[in-house]
Amino acid sequence: MPDPLRDRPAPRGPVDGTRVPRFAGPATFARLPRIDEVSDVDVAVVGVPFDAGVSYRPGARFGPAHVRESSRLLRPYNPAVDVEPFARQQVVDAGDIAVNPFDIEAAIAGVEAGARALLERSRRVVTIGGDHTIALPLLRAVAADHGPVAVVHFDAHLDTWDTYFGAPYTHGTPFRRASEEGLVDRSGCLHVGTRGPLYSTQDLVQDTELGFQVVGSTEMDDIGARGVVERIRERVQERPVYLSVDIDVLDPAFAPGTGTPEAGGLTSRELLAVLRSFSELHLVGADVVEVAPAYDHAEVTGIAASHVIYEILSALAPR
Amino acid sequence: MPDPLRDRPAPRGPVDGTRVPRFAGPATFARLPRIDEVSDVDVAVVGVPFDAGVSYRPGARFGPAHVRESSRLLRPYNPAVDVEPFARQQVVDAGDIAVNPFDIEAAIAGVEAGARALLERSRRVVTIGGDHTIALPLLRAVAADHGPVAVVHFDAHLDTWDTYFGAPYTHGTPFRRASEEGLVDRSGCLHVGTRGPLYSTQDLVQDTELGFQVVGSTEMDDIGARGVVERIRERVQERPVYLSVDIDVLDPAFAPGTGTPEAGGLTSRELLAVLRSFSELHLVGADVVEVAPAYDHAEVTGIAASHVIYEILSALAPR
Amino acid sequence: MPDPLRDRPAPRGPVDGTRVPRFAGPATFARLPRIDEVSDVDVAVVGVPFDAGVSYRPGARFGPAHVRESSRLLRPYNPAVDVEPFARQQVVDAGDIAVNPFDIEAAIAGVEAGARALLERSRRVVTIGGDHTIALPLLRAVAADHGPVAVVHFDAHLDTWDTYFGAPYTHGTPFRRASEEGLVDRSGCLHVGTRGPLYSTQDLVQDTELGFQVVGSTEMDDIGARGVVERIRERVQERPVYLSVDIDVLDPAFAPGTGTPEAGGLTSRELLAVLRSFSELHLVGADVVEVAPAYDHAEVTGIAASHVIYEILSALAPR
Amino acid sequence: MPDPLRDRPAPRGPVDGTRVPRFAGPATFARLPRIDEVSDVDVAVVGVPFDAGVSYRPGARFGPAHVRESSRLLRPYNPAVDVEPFARQQVVDAGDIAVNPFDIEAAIAGVEAGARALLERSRRVVTIGGDHTIALPLLRAVAADHGPVAVVHFDAHLDTWDTYFGAPYTHGTPFRRASEEGLVDRSGCLHVGTRGPLYSTQDLVQDTELGFQVVGSTEMDDIGARGVVERIRERVQERPVYLSVDIDVLDPAFAPGTGTPEAGGLTSRELLAVLRSFSELHLVGADVVEVAPAYDHAEVTGIAASHVIYEILSALAPR
Amino acid sequence: MPDPLRDRPAPRGPVDGTRVPRFAGPATFARLPRIDEVSDVDVAVVGVPFDAGVSYRPGARFGPAHVRESSRLLRPYNPAVDVEPFARQQVVDAGDIAVNPFDIEAAIAGVEAGARALLERSRRVVTIGGDHTIALPLLRAVAADHGPVAVVHFDAHLDTWDTYFGAPYTHGTPFRRASEEGLVDRSGCLHVGTRGPLYSTQDLVQDTELGFQVVGSTEMDDIGARGVVERIRERVQERPVYLSVDIDVLDPAFAPGTGTPEAGGLTSRELLAVLRSFSELHLVGADVVEVAPAYDHAEVTGIAASHVIYEILSALAPR
Amino acid sequence: MPDPLRDRPAPRGPVDGTRVPRFAGPATFARLPRIDEVSDVDVAVVGVPFDAGVSYRPGARFGPAHVRESSRLLRPYNPAVDVEPFARQQVVDAGDIAVNPFDIEAAIAGVEAGARALLERSRRVVTIGGDHTIALPLLRAVAADHGPVAVVHFDAHLDTWDTYFGAPYTHGTPFRRASEEGLVDRSGCLHVGTRGPLYSTQDLVQDTELGFQVVGSTEMDDIGARGVVERIRERVQERPVYLSVDIDVLDPAFAPGTGTPEAGGLTSRELLAVLRSFSELHLVGADVVEVAPAYDHAEVTGIAASHVIYEILSALAPR
Repeated sequence: MPDPLRDRPAPRGPVDGTRVPRFAGPATFARLPRIDEVSDVDVAVVGVPFDAGVSYRPGARFGPAHVRESSRLLRPYNPAVDVEPFARQQVVDAGDIAVNPFDIEAAIAGVEAGARALLERSRRVVTIGGDHTIALPLLRAVAADHGPVAVVHFDAHLDTWDTYFGAPYTHGTPFRRASEEGLVDRSGCLHVGTRGPLYSTQDLVQDTELGFQVVGSTEMDDIGARGVVERIRERVQERPVYLSVDIDVLDPAFAPGTGTPEAGGLTSRELLAVLRSFSELHLVGADVVEVAPAYDHAEVTGIAASHVIYEILSALAPR
Repeated sequence: MPDPLRDRPAPRGPVDGTRVPRFAGPATFARLPRIDEVSDVDVAVVGVPFDAGVSYRPGARFGPAHVRESSRLLRPYNPAVDVEPFARQQVVDAGDIAVNPFDIEAAIAGVEAGARALLERSRRVVTIGGDHTIALPLLRAVAADHGPVAVVHFDAHLDTWDTYFGAPYTHGTPFRRASEEGLVDRSGCLHVGTRGPLYSTQDLVQDTELGFQVVGSTEMDDIGARGVVERIRERVQERPVYLSVDIDVLDPAFAPGTGTPEAGGLTSRELLAVLRSFSELHLVGADVVEVAPAYDHAEVTGIAASHVIYEILSALAPR
Repeated sequence: MPDPLRDRPAPRGPVDGTRVPRFAGPATFARLPRIDEVSDVDVAVVGVPFDAGVSYRPGARFGPAHVRESSRLLRPYNPAVDVEPFARQQVVDAGDIAVNPFDIEAAIAGVEAGARALLERSRRVVTIGGDHTIALPLLRAVAADHGPVAVVHFDAHLDTWDTYFGAPYTHGTPFRRASEEGLVDRSGCLHVGTRGPLYSTQDLVQDTELGFQVVGSTEMDDIGARGVVERIRERVQERPVYLSVDIDVLDPAFAPGTGTPEAGGLTSRELLAVLRSFSELHLVGADVVEVAPAYDHAEVTGIAASHVIYEILSALAPR
Repeated sequence: MPDPLRDRPAPRGPVDGTRVPRFAGPATFARLPRIDEVSDVDVAVVGVPFDAGVSYRPGARFGPAHVRESSRLLRPYNPAVDVEPFARQQVVDAGDIAVNPFDIEAAIAGVEAGARALLERSRRVVTIGGDHTIALPLLRAVAADHGPVAVVHFDAHLDTWDTYFGAPYTHGTPFRRASEEGLVDRSGCLHVGTRGPLYSTQDLVQDTELGFQVVGSTEMDDIGARGVVERIRERVQERPVYLSVDIDVLDPAFAPGTGTPEAGGLTSRELLAVLRSFSELHLVGADVVEVAPAYDHAEVTGIAASHVIYEILSALAPR
Repeated sequence: MPDPLRDRPAPRGPVDGTRVPRFAGPATFARLPRIDEVSDVDVAVVGVPFDAGVSYRPGARFGPAHVRESSRLLRPYNPAVDVEPFARQQVVDAGDIAVNPFDIEAAIAGVEAGARALLERSRRVVTIGGDHTIALPLLRAVAADHGPVAVVHFDAHLDTWDTYFGAPYTHGTPFRRASEEGLVDRSGCLHVGTRGPLYSTQDLVQDTELGFQVVGSTEMDDIGARGVVERIRERVQERPVYLSVDIDVLDPAFAPGTGTPEAGGLTSRELLAVLRSFSELHLVGADVVEVAPAYDHAEVTGIAASHVIYEILSALAPR
Repeated sequence: MPDPLRDRPAPRGPVDGTRVPRFAGPATFARLPRIDEVSDVDVAVVGVPFDAGVSYRPGARFGPAHVRESSRLLRPYNPAVDVEPFARQQVVDAGDIAVNPFDIEAAIAGVEAGARALLERSRRVVTIGGDHTIALPLLRAVAADHGPVAVVHFDAHLDTWDTYFGAPYTHGTPFRRASEEGLVDRSGCLHVGTRGPLYSTQDLVQDTELGFQVVGSTEMDDIGARGVVERIRERVQERPVYLSVDIDVLDPAFAPGTGTPEAGGLTSRELLAVLRSFSELHLVGADVVEVAPAYDHAEVTGIAASHVIYEILSALAPR
């Protein structure tokens, strides 16, 4: 890959934490510049404050603001992967895509339009949800550029259900719709961290038909983070990868602030360890969704989400 | 009025608190019988767990369950008005009206159908929300029986806005829609406790045209609860009255668990004092809405709401 | 009254807040000396961490520690009544009376024994509960010295019920038992702040027979704090007064951390205003009970309770 | 085992989550039918809201209601063990056994009577506490049917202490009393997850004499969930097993809402993994105790407890 | 006063709440433009995230971000005073003045420099604290333009103490230092809402010498908001007024999120009513301080503070 | 080592939990005697309520009181290491070292003086912070007795930064200053549990020069607690060891109540397992810092910290 920074000024990084206290100033993600403050953009972090698609606890509409506030402690160098994610690529905070809170289909159209517009300015987009409904329009926008993608989906749930109260578009259905629409490469998708009760045995059968393999949360005990990384690599190979992280993949102890928590989840250490392998994949887009701040405590969930995004940004950084 | 209990068994009251601890057993409202446990019903308390119409903090979908849990301490005799609200009328818990969480208009139709069906079994219905959107279908159901009603509306807000994101039916618009539909008697409505910023000076002009007078929260300082009662009486007179209490009429100190809190509200003592006068009005229906438990603490909001309902039930009791 | 400090060293006051930060050091009440640190004692503040007598939310066993932690901001001069409560009388923290948490009657005996022992060292005892059950043994100890006392009882509830699950001694019954035992002067007792539903109309009838008048919380609106003070003075006159403050006399907004909250209560400003009049009464003992910290937030309840105690100590100070 | 469903209608399962939102309707466990709604019962989930036996933080009296509210997300198919726990056996919610909150021995008698009565209608009973005191009467009821049982006890503590303040029946003593009464098979009991300080070296000596082996929480690091399962199997073999899960076996991060938390506990993933092996044991009864909601956050503890019960119900299901 | 908007474009107001949901987008105060987005500025709202001067609970460093998040519901028209505060003057959010968190005197210098610089761009500055230490440099900046000002100080405390641990500049001393420095007009200052214990009787004597009168919180009961307004008017008359609102002037029920709470305070309705009179005073600057979010709940304190600022902005608006 | 208890009375242990309930009485650490209650002292637990050195969330000034309250459940026998930590050495609670909250350097001098004075009475001192700034003066005091020590530092962060806002002494710099001052043995120090972003690649280079090796949190997955123990042993060998535990070494799920939380940390089980090996090292002092109670929930953080201290006390006990 040619150096994306050639013929460009050095990227503008976060506000200097030794001159402006971390608790001061606007809460852009990681205190990065706003998109209107720079001319060239490599990666845009954008919020989608929308939660009308949830089936249980609402509140993810406040997720983007909360994750940003929880990201004030992020510093410029990631020693775990020896990368400075803001130094070799221009990362910005692109604000929020404002969508209709009362009409799910209008909102989905709004997210898709917003994401497409943003992708014209930014090579990659990392989205902070919002509920998981938004993964569908985000996949539409990404697939428009890259064709069908391999979805790596961290979640307690499958999110390949069909309808709910007759509604085809909710936070439980994005990957079924995406598969039906041909947005995903059915030979390259998998869920990681799945657990908890399902509706019926058919759920898994249909899920397989839609293109997904499952690495359940209990497999972490047997094969460890390295084994999970291996499973992911084998599945996605060279395909363009879309990464979707529902924060409820973490155990409720690590992510109480979410809408449909299930006991028995991953630890944040496990999740971060797996994500560190994504620099070796062809990552073309990502989202982190379902942070519901009203149920969070001391920003535990927000901080976990902000670290997840930080690892994604590190994985996107040129080496 | 003929004695509604003539030729009937004595009403079945709450579970005896000296034999079953108040923290034990199912949380029907005030530990009253379920509607399927009695044959004759005078007043049904019903929940509408719906909050897809909110513009800010969601969560009122958990309101009915929360208010019921917070009602476990209610006892049978109301000394403030010298009434035993469960002794001279059969009050029951009618459970929840289950509606579509993803489609506001479908939900409104569901609430109306549910309320109409319930009104065939029960002389009066008192509803626990849910967000304020539900007042529209509840007014439709009540007006079908009583014709246009005088709405007495306790709220920090007017709730007579027009549209929001193009949506005509939200928690900010029920009384405009109701007025447009001819469900309210435009010469008999008023808001009590209104305060806080509005969108423009036109808000109040239009509100007046829609049939409402305003008794702002600051007037409580000048005329007291008695003066407010007098204002209400003068306005509604002999008309059939529908009472709608948005719990945010209380100051956030008294009702933190709500969606659009505004400083400077009523105290719970003031609100209860005013509500005690409703026995003298021709009360034909009521709701208590916008309890959002995720923002409550120690059931402060839930308890306030449960006492509001208790005063409503006392006002409905035959004397 | 002869100067209680004559022939004695000046009382030892709180730790100096300008030399030891208020957040440092042990949390004795108001950072006063322990009883074992001084030789002469006028007023002892003592905790009774007991809550096996509660009918609803438990947790008042942690009340004494919580109120002490919440008392760290109390300073030596009370400008509202122009008194230095720690300067003209030796006030100490006498620690906790440890009682059996599993056997109510054993605990009652333990409290009585502890209080009697303490009264041999200290002219007055002010007790931090614990649940209201403890008022009975405290009254036994006080009446042993002073004969039947006039009880001024601030509470949302009457606490003159008879039995509960066959148990004669619970937090709902202390004043019935005390009246039956002849510990109270039936011509001089009253409740202040009572509100909320009762079991039956008989509750008030029996309450009157047991010697109590009622100043309900709603009367505050009509007669104000001054009027309430007048009602108290008329009722108790020159009698020895025992003051019992159930923190639930405050509205849940002001005291969420309690076991049986009822909407519509007093504000802390009202309660403190009334208590400031007690310097003119013949106050012989006091308790502040039913602080349940697990339901408190930001020490709001604990701080209110600590201020109540501070006013009691001011009322006990020689002028 | 003959098919328990032969000659019977298909079991009635939970309310359909795609027609009634999970946040709507009464909170029976997993939204299962009430016991009075079905004729044949295989497994009854019953609450015992009692906590007068606790030595530290009270509040488990609110445990049953809280765990039920936290069980609304449970779905019908358990993929971890490939079982539909509500399809091949009729599971019901039997409500609460109401017992005396003021008299421990009366309460113990009440629990025993309630459990025995319930066992006449239901093959198995799974109890939601309440504090651990209730394990004694539950063991009495089970042993009456099955003789001495092998107790598998998940807990941070041994709960085989002798007396506390002279009280023989508290939440720290049920298994000593049960062993003394001959309710347990001393050759088949063990504790799992034990940790934290004890009173003295004698605690373990006596515990052994009472029939218990110990699998401490730190052993999980060495032998993993599979190793713990093996230890349990070796110990209990073919004996009838009573499973008692004190939620404090989980680390406080996973179960903050409990009365006597100890650092260094199990994760919920570990606990659920071990419980999944119980289908191979002869499980005759179970309880999940010590959920104290006032200390919970975002239902983290309640959800963990509900998943524990779900695995127990799965283990009880016919294969 | 000449129209400040003459020859200028109409002020840019808040983001339109009917097009961008209130929970979306950056949290500038009231969703107003940033200072760099407009050319002419009348009033700048600026944060000072500093709390190294506190004597008890810290955390006000997070106050500016919290108050801004809590201001998302503010709308453009203030019906209580019939003013559109953003329509006739350009109000902006000027971000935070970043100061040294480890050196109080350096921070004070930084605040003064920041405020002076801002006053060169903006006619008026309204500051969100931060702890009360910052009132001193803010007064220095204001007095540089206006000469000695009349300070109207809403607070539970006097904040005219001398030193604390030898430190002359803390949150308990700003008004003594300001008076000593000649920044205030000693004939025109007063405290409103003062209450709670003091160090000694000398506190009030010295406070008077420093130029302050006291309107204690209990006077609100006697003279009401109108009487307090009258007291303020009489005291400050035509003088330039600096308004300093410590949020702890509110009762802890209304403002739990603060550092040194005292029971018996004002209600938010009372405070807002008094502030509405400031349009008639010659208001030259203001601050709202001591919001400590870690102790807030459901933004109750933040919302109260945001309404206080909204009334200040309304008072500053040309009529 | 000669028996430290020879010629002395048996140590005075904690208050007996079977006679005084654990929730009663003063909250000395583990309910141990105060230092003034015994004549000979082996180990003193002392608090340093200071947090003016923090760069993000303040509040550790309340840490000592919180950890003590959270230590009430600690019992006398530690089965994990088969030690009775209070039986073979006299452990006491030495109260708090009160220091200047407004001047970091004055506070550092105060802590050093306080620690030196205490070390004249007590063989070992275990300190409860307070923020990590205090490690510097504590190391000064320890090095004065033992010469340069091997620091074993559990923390998410390196705490070897240089200056921050020009301030040389903050919670991010103690180990750089200590290394510069020659207080540490540069051949024997290491960090355990480090993770999260750094400022730059130079951070680790300088850290190495200052004498530290790093065992990152992710290494726990590879080598387990036993491997970490081995790494520590190899590094420190026979050197005198100072143990410094920043509670944020735990994952935020296990320690939400801290100032600069980072996702991906240790579990409390892992941390305790590693600490149990310290009995084999030459441990000469220890601190546990950065517990910020305002962000804790249900004492989860406080309990973890109290168990950490309990293991330290066990490691110090003679065998």
